[in-house]
Amino acid sequence: MSLIEKLQWRYATKKMDPAKAVPAAKVEQILEAIRLTASSSGLQPYEVIVITNSDLRQKIRAVSNDQSQITDCSHLLVFAAWDNYTAERINAAFDMTETARNFKSESGTAYRQMLLKAYPARDAEVNFTHTAKQAYIGLGTALIAAADEQVDCTPMEGFNPKALDEILNLQAKGLRSVVMLPLGYRNADEDWLVNLKKVRRPKEAFITRID
Amino acid sequence: MSLIEKLQWRYATKKMDPAKAVPAAKVEQILEAIRLTASSSGLQPYEVIVITNSDLRQKIRAVSNDQSQITDCSHLLVFAAWDNYTAERINAAFDMTETARNFKSESGTAYRQMLLKAYPARDAEVNFTHTAKQAYIGLGTALIAAADEQVDCTPMEGFNPKALDEILNLQAKGLRSVVMLPLGYRNADEDWLVNLKKVRRPKEAFITRID
Repeated sequence: MSLIEKLQWRYATKKMDPAKAVPAAKVEQILEAIRLTASSSGLQPYEVIVITNSDLRQKIRAVSNDQSQITDCSHLLVFAAWDNYTAERINAAFDMTETARNFKSESGTAYRQMLLKAYPARDAEVNFTHTAKQAYIGLGTALIAAADEQVDCTPMEGFNPKALDEILNLQAKGLRSVVMLPLGYRNADEDWLVNLKKVRRPKEAFITRID
Repeated sequence: MSLIEKLQWRYATKKMDPAKAVPAAKVEQILEAIRLTASSSGLQPYEVIVITNSDLRQKIRAVSNDQSQITDCSHLLVFAAWDNYTAERINAAFDMTETARNFKSESGTAYRQMLLKAYPARDAEVNFTHTAKQAYIGLGTALIAAADEQVDCTPMEGFNPKALDEILNLQAKGLRSVVMLPLGYRNADEDWLVNLKKVRRPKEAFITRID
């Protein structure tokens, strides 16, 4: 399948089959794609929590509008973004990169100093908006990676983030939940969306060209 | 190439070759991938502006830290998100979907009413944060679509958004610039980043598993 065909194939699965689990190797490919994708200044300011535990998923479902995919999927991904940029986090990212590359440059050092001056001084909420956006790059990547593995998934914003943060004890890790992505397999017989046409604005209403 | 290999191949190109233009067919594939990807409630709350005009790209470069890719690329994509959710925009999206599917359901109507009640009443800035995140799903998609076409690109947040909005007259369209993506081809001889190792946090520091 081409990328376009994969994007046509995927849809926000409404009903998953709890009897079918995604093989571990496919989950690893999806996680690896997320890990490899881009982020602003390469900081990767988020983490991905992979939950298979049933009790925990029951608890999460209870604060997520009772959406069945949370317990019918086999792997629930939670994208949790840094609650703030700190000097420690920025330095750790730059140190890691310089060590792995065995490469340090004046411009790299100047860039690090620029971020150290700009980011931690900003309001935490401004920084969290920025880190959350980077998690959405990961989400956009995960959707394609799942389709690539013929795995179904459902991007989910419909949950109580504070309650989810408490359930997962994210505050202690300096994280805040952003978006969830259950991975599983569609139950086509019981999914009202599966056979409905994918609808998008036509190109003329989505793309503007300035030549 | 596998998806993982494409993600390994791509990098934030620092120096592009102005003599090489991306063929129109490849640009269309990248735009189509963005158009097809997911967005919250299917609202696609953003647009993509594709700029080839040289004068305009010079002006944009001047408010974007003088980044050379803006004028060395052949196609500059600007992701511009809705500045707010309005009843008109929400209704237009639902109307379009219902018409295209020739399908209307009680639950769909209830969902539309829920959004109409919740979104327009929120602060415009809260809504813009939400629409901008959706554009980042598009960005994550575009990066992969470009790699799929062996086209280089550079995700760019380093610009003055208010100045860019003015240059593109976005306010009049109810849009705000979010992120840019020049499409072009690397000038490998002059790109300091091209041969440096891609560095990411190891899985253990990026993924948490709860079984």
